[in-house]
Amino acid sequence: MAGSYDRALTIFSPDGHLFQVDYALEAVRKGSCVVGVRGKDVVVLGVEKKSVLKLQDDRTVKKICMLDDHVCLAFAGLSADARVLVNKARIECQSHRLTVEDAVSIEYITRHIAGVQQKYTQSGGVRPFGISTLIMGFDSDKVPKLYQTDPSGVYSAWKANAIGRSSKTVREFLEKNYKEDMTRDETVKLAIKSLLEVVQTGAKNIEIALMGEDAKIQRLELSEVEKVVAEIEAENEKEKEKAKPSQQQ
Amino acid sequence: MAGSYDRALTIFSPDGHLFQVDYALEAVRKGSCVVGVRGKDVVVLGVEKKSVLKLQDDRTVKKICMLDDHVCLAFAGLSADARVLVNKARIECQSHRLTVEDAVSIEYITRHIAGVQQKYTQSGGVRPFGISTLIMGFDSDKVPKLYQTDPSGVYSAWKANAIGRSSKTVREFLEKNYKEDMTRDETVKLAIKSLLEVVQTGAKNIEIALMGEDAKIQRLELSEVEKVVAEIEAENEKEKEKAKPSQQQ
Amino acid sequence: MAGSYDRALTIFSPDGHLFQVDYALEAVRKGSCVVGVRGKDVVVLGVEKKSVLKLQDDRTVKKICMLDDHVCLAFAGLSADARVLVNKARIECQSHRLTVEDAVSIEYITRHIAGVQQKYTQSGGVRPFGISTLIMGFDSDKVPKLYQTDPSGVYSAWKANAIGRSSKTVREFLEKNYKEDMTRDETVKLAIKSLLEVVQTGAKNIEIALMGEDAKIQRLELSEVEKVVAEIEAENEKEKEKAKPSQQQ
Amino acid sequence: MAGSYDRALTIFSPDGHLFQVDYALEAVRKGSCVVGVRGKDVVVLGVEKKSVLKLQDDRTVKKICMLDDHVCLAFAGLSADARVLVNKARIECQSHRLTVEDAVSIEYITRHIAGVQQKYTQSGGVRPFGISTLIMGFDSDKVPKLYQTDPSGVYSAWKANAIGRSSKTVREFLEKNYKEDMTRDETVKLAIKSLLEVVQTGAKNIEIALMGEDAKIQRLELSEVEKVVAEIEAENEKEKEKAKPSQQQ
Amino acid sequence: MAGSYDRALTIFSPDGHLFQVDYALEAVRKGSCVVGVRGKDVVVLGVEKKSVLKLQDDRTVKKICMLDDHVCLAFAGLSADARVLVNKARIECQSHRLTVEDAVSIEYITRHIAGVQQKYTQSGGVRPFGISTLIMGFDSDKVPKLYQTDPSGVYSAWKANAIGRSSKTVREFLEKNYKEDMTRDETVKLAIKSLLEVVQTGAKNIEIALMGEDAKIQRLELSEVEKVVAEIEAENEKEKEKAKPSQQQ
Amino acid sequence: MAGSYDRALTIFSPDGHLFQVDYALEAVRKGSCVVGVRGKDVVVLGVEKKSVLKLQDDRTVKKICMLDDHVCLAFAGLSADARVLVNKARIECQSHRLTVEDAVSIEYITRHIAGVQQKYTQSGGVRPFGISTLIMGFDSDKVPKLYQTDPSGVYSAWKANAIGRSSKTVREFLEKNYKEDMTRDETVKLAIKSLLEVVQTGAKNIEIALMGEDAKIQRLELSEVEKVVAEIEAENEKEKEKAKPSQQQ
Amino acid sequence: MAGSYDRALTIFSPDGHLFQVDYALEAVRKGSCVVGVRGKDVVVLGVEKKSVLKLQDDRTVKKICMLDDHVCLAFAGLSADARVLVNKARIECQSHRLTVEDAVSIEYITRHIAGVQQKYTQSGGVRPFGISTLIMGFDSDKVPKLYQTDPSGVYSAWKANAIGRSSKTVREFLEKNYKEDMTRDETVKLAIKSLLEVVQTGAKNIEIALMGEDAKIQRLELSEVEKVVAEIEAENEKEKEKAKPSQQQ
Repeated sequence: MAGSYDRALTIFSPDGHLFQVDYALEAVRKGSCVVGVRGKDVVVLGVEKKSVLKLQDDRTVKKICMLDDHVCLAFAGLSADARVLVNKARIECQSHRLTVEDAVSIEYITRHIAGVQQKYTQSGGVRPFGISTLIMGFDSDKVPKLYQTDPSGVYSAWKANAIGRSSKTVREFLEKNYKEDMTRDETVKLAIKSLLEVVQTGAKNIEIALMGEDAKIQRLELSEVEKVVAEIEAENEKEKEKAKPSQQQ
Repeated sequence: MAGSYDRALTIFSPDGHLFQVDYALEAVRKGSCVVGVRGKDVVVLGVEKKSVLKLQDDRTVKKICMLDDHVCLAFAGLSADARVLVNKARIECQSHRLTVEDAVSIEYITRHIAGVQQKYTQSGGVRPFGISTLIMGFDSDKVPKLYQTDPSGVYSAWKANAIGRSSKTVREFLEKNYKEDMTRDETVKLAIKSLLEVVQTGAKNIEIALMGEDAKIQRLELSEVEKVVAEIEAENEKEKEKAKPSQQQ
Repeated sequence: MAGSYDRALTIFSPDGHLFQVDYALEAVRKGSCVVGVRGKDVVVLGVEKKSVLKLQDDRTVKKICMLDDHVCLAFAGLSADARVLVNKARIECQSHRLTVEDAVSIEYITRHIAGVQQKYTQSGGVRPFGISTLIMGFDSDKVPKLYQTDPSGVYSAWKANAIGRSSKTVREFLEKNYKEDMTRDETVKLAIKSLLEVVQTGAKNIEIALMGEDAKIQRLELSEVEKVVAEIEAENEKEKEKAKPSQQQ
Repeated sequence: MAGSYDRALTIFSPDGHLFQVDYALEAVRKGSCVVGVRGKDVVVLGVEKKSVLKLQDDRTVKKICMLDDHVCLAFAGLSADARVLVNKARIECQSHRLTVEDAVSIEYITRHIAGVQQKYTQSGGVRPFGISTLIMGFDSDKVPKLYQTDPSGVYSAWKANAIGRSSKTVREFLEKNYKEDMTRDETVKLAIKSLLEVVQTGAKNIEIALMGEDAKIQRLELSEVEKVVAEIEAENEKEKEKAKPSQQQ
Repeated sequence: MAGSYDRALTIFSPDGHLFQVDYALEAVRKGSCVVGVRGKDVVVLGVEKKSVLKLQDDRTVKKICMLDDHVCLAFAGLSADARVLVNKARIECQSHRLTVEDAVSIEYITRHIAGVQQKYTQSGGVRPFGISTLIMGFDSDKVPKLYQTDPSGVYSAWKANAIGRSSKTVREFLEKNYKEDMTRDETVKLAIKSLLEVVQTGAKNIEIALMGEDAKIQRLELSEVEKVVAEIEAENEKEKEKAKPSQQQ
Repeated sequence: MAGSYDRALTIFSPDGHLFQVDYALEAVRKGSCVVGVRGKDVVVLGVEKKSVLKLQDDRTVKKICMLDDHVCLAFAGLSADARVLVNKARIECQSHRLTVEDAVSIEYITRHIAGVQQKYTQSGGVRPFGISTLIMGFDSDKVPKLYQTDPSGVYSAWKANAIGRSSKTVREFLEKNYKEDMTRDETVKLAIKSLLEVVQTGAKNIEIALMGEDAKIQRLELSEVEKVVAEIEAENEKEKEKAKPSQQQ
Repeated sequence: MAGSYDRALTIFSPDGHLFQVDYALEAVRKGSCVVGVRGKDVVVLGVEKKSVLKLQDDRTVKKICMLDDHVCLAFAGLSADARVLVNKARIECQSHRLTVEDAVSIEYITRHIAGVQQKYTQSGGVRPFGISTLIMGFDSDKVPKLYQTDPSGVYSAWKANAIGRSSKTVREFLEKNYKEDMTRDETVKLAIKSLLEVVQTGAKNIEIALMGEDAKIQRLELSEVEKVVAEIEAENEKEKEKAKPSQQQ
């Protein structure tokens, strides 16, 4: 049905779609799952790490990148595209510090990133970026921030959200389980729990980074993630136990 | 039927149409519904808020944007495109203040926006903007102003109008119910009432902004909207009541 | 038969046509009807106003635009395109005043407008303008001037002419009824009479602007138009009366 | 057979043709007929005026344009294209006067015009000019000059020639009737006579301009043309008379 | 078989051909025949003049053009293209005189011309030149030079050669009849004789230019050409006479 | 199935693929096999040398190139493309030394190379590079580094990896046989052993380069490679011997 | 099978090929055969001269061109393309002398030439060069050098190699007959012998250039080539003689 509307870069189809943007979203949907959760005074990004090949050095396979001291970004989609966008964002952060003598606000840098993404959907000669992003950080108001951008250049703020593979399932899980004013530990647990909906292989394929009121990034050690996973599994067991008798009744 | 006239950017079809502009209008027709109503000394913009996902932070999903202190814009269509256009308009507002040492008039900035939209329909290598806009504000003459622009770059002034999803239905409703010289409350009520023609889910999906003679924007609280919705529902009930006996007679 | 010659911008078909220009003329033929009539020392432009939607503020739907104090333009076709062309013309008028220290002549500005229109038919990457124009004004010789341009960039001078919807019918009417050295009132009446050939809805959809020897534009009030329409209708009645008996004889 | 060779701007077909140039010649062949005739010390251009619409002011429909005081040009084809080419030529004439402190020679300006036409057949992004031209004038040697250019950029000198509608018929007529060293009146008469081969409607659709040794252009009044036409008709009558008896014999 | 390889400007076909260059050669093959012959201390160019239309002034239809005082060029193919190339060559000749303070060598200017032709076969957006050229001249070594270039940009030196219509036949004739160290008259006669292989209409359609050791161009008068043609015809008659008896024997 | 999505340079297919990048990977898969192995304080690159034609001078067929004193690169794919990329990398290394007054880190130059590769997948008018690379070197921390980049612009760090022909088989072999903290000799042996999985013709088609803590490149002599190959073959024999009796049991 | 992958300039086919480069190689394969042979302290280039037309002056048909005093190049393929590449190389040689105050090394200029060729395979708007080259010369180390480049931009060093028509046959002949440390005469003889595998017409169609330790080019006279050819034929006869008796045995 799409005919040939989808082959030219910046063209509307008769029903008002921009196919190239839709197809870039497919590339996002093929990427690893990423979740972001905002707690009381903490914000957490969790990423499904691709089952790294045995000999791969996973230092370079970071899906969570610092943009500035107080803001970081996780992405789903083409990682080479992501690097380009991250570079552009970092330069904007530094240049903002130089000209305004102040750090960027989280929304400012989000809007900048989304703006770059939009530009690639309206000009000829380039294709859209094949990534969605989750951006977290703290402004001087000490309130945790969490934003999402997508290939069309739309951005929005979230309490908790997921992008990439099976993001719909994970988002539904988040909707069911999100609570206001979660502590640091509750927030981390929810992020990991929601990722486990998609990641079958447990702690070793999960990467967690979080930021507290001090706006410093903390990356969880594998052992810390494993501990939380174990906790979650224990709870699940218990719940199943609880569920069984009630089924028998 | 359109053949292949609709795939090249800036080309007339044999019957004198620019298909890409028509298709961009489709993107507008898929957008949320937006209404604008001019009262005696007030002008109101009402927007259907997309049923925000449960965890979404609706601060960023603003469809009503300030262009300058005394003028603001609501749009229907692709929100990433809208942001670009809003940015261009804001820059024009500021640059006008700097060079002319005066604020833009509402018509001036409307013409500027429409001009940008037109340019994207006549040059190669770009697609039209996928948005229509309603622009409201006050000039120094203290008369409320309401303008509309569309993807072709046409603009026009209105007493009341609607764009986006089901805009035709809403416009017909406005035509039936518009009165001259409405007070602030009557104007707000008409805006909300007309939106309810489309929005099934009541107050929580309605966003209202208005401007009085002081040319300051006021955004209504949810509670205020709810109050008006309740009022409207009560009236409707009453009218139904009235209608019934008369039917029985 | 046109095959694919008509899809590339600046290409001749085997029989020597530029299809894009022909299709732009279709867009003109879809536009409102515009008439221009030259009297003894007056020149009149009459425009069919689209039946404005009930709530539309018709101030912005002007099809008669001033280019400079002594020259004004009416157009048929895409109004967003017209605005661009009018802007270019206004700038040329101002820049001419600055460099030559004199106002443009009516023919000079007409040639300029037609030149811009031609350029858009010979270069790649742009489409022709979808408008025809009628330009009226007075030079220092105090002779009324009336010119026409079309999307191909051709221009010509006229005693009276029509463009847009049903322009052929109106032109034939003008040919039958035009007289040399008409007074101001006769000229206005002829303009309105010829528009009534196309406009069914009478005075309210007719806009009239005229210029006398003082080269000042005058826009007729609705009441003035109505008076003339009434006069015309009375005359028509009388003629029918006259016609009847003579038929009975 | 032409297949798709004719749709790309600057491409040879397998048999060595440039189709776009051939098609531009079609546009010329649709244009009004133009003749040029060189006499002893005079050169004449004659143009078939399109049967101007009744209300059209024929001042602007000039097909004979001055390029400089001593050289003028008539064209067949798209008049908007012609205006562009005439402008370029006029600028060249002025700039030549400024830099060389002398007027252009007739061949110089002809070569310039043909050069512009050639350029539009070899570069991408533009189409050829849809016009052929006849250029007449006097250099300081006081010899009448007559040149022709066509859309391919070829130019050549002529004693007498015709371009545009039915130019082949007219050229054959000229070949039969041309005499060396004709006087001013004989030259004018030949030009008009040859045009009458194509123009059915007589003097009112014929425009004549001529240049004598003083290199000043003279445009014939309608009355003058009518006088010559009458003369020609009288002669034709006489010849028919003569022919009849000889037929009877 | 060629499929669509031949429609894009600068592309190889699967068997390594550049079709556009081949097609440009077709345009050359349609051009008038041109021959060049080198004698002992003379070099001659002979051109078939198109049967000029009766009223055409053949001064402008020169196919032999001076590039500089000591070098001249004849071409077969599109004459508008040739003019462009000749202009470029003339400018190079002058600029060489200015910078190097010496005239160009014949091979230098040939290589320059061929280089321009090559460039138009490798860049996008332009088509190859539709001409081949023969270039003759004398360098300071007083040796006659004769070069050929073609649309692909190849050039080569020749004792005698032909380009354009029926060039193959003429070249074979030259191969049979060429002798080393011919005098001026023998060289001219051979050039004319070889052209008569193609030109049926005799002297009036033959143009001859030659250069002696003084490196000055000489153009033969029609009478001179006619004399040689007469001589040749006489000789041919004699030979036929001779042949007849020998046949009878 | 791919339809025509794969023919335009920078376009997504409906399922989110960039075909040109996939096809460039095919060019890589056709290239010679390259392995990289990191030991305790050594890193080794091994390359399958194409069976050089008998008379070819194999000095120029280097697939292992120095980028700077302390970093070198091996590639699989189109060698002409590789040379371009290597040049760009060398210039970056030198310019980094000049501006920062320090050598590049291995990751820095890897990211730079991958960045260049990404850029060629997102802009119009160029195709992706048809190569993957393995980059090895030492930073001032004296830890061996091994990185890989591919045509999409993705890069990653590895303990051991293979690219090019049969890279999948070789990588699996590496995964089975890799040990942590290998000595120089063990590392070289593993590199050669893994190449022998693909290279049938033994030592003469294997090229080995390694770097120790001193960050100086060492290229193994053929004799050295032969010695290791002999060793490996002896071991293999022994193992087969061992295997046989156990099979008989 | 190739479908339409081969019609766009810089695009990979699904199996990783660049068709335009393959097709350019076809143009090379259609070119004259060229051989290069390295001896002890001599290097020889031999070229098959096209059977020059009888009247052609073979001075300009050189396929062996000097790039600088100590380096020269022979090519197979489109000679107009070759001239462009040779020009670029010569300029590089001179500019290198100016900036580095030293002559280019043979490998340096080879890499430069190959680099230019590569660039034409990766950018839009140009086609690859339709030539392969053999480059010979001496650096200051007095070792003979022989390199080859091809349209893809790959280069390599050789003891002996052949390009162009039947190059495969010739290369096999060279492989069988090449010996290390050949004297000047042996090297020349091998070059001629291998060319005779392809060239049926003997010495007159063979062009030989050689360079000794003095890095001066020497072009063999026809008589010298003929002497060697005679020698070779004598030897061949002898061998046949030898062969016969042994067959009879």
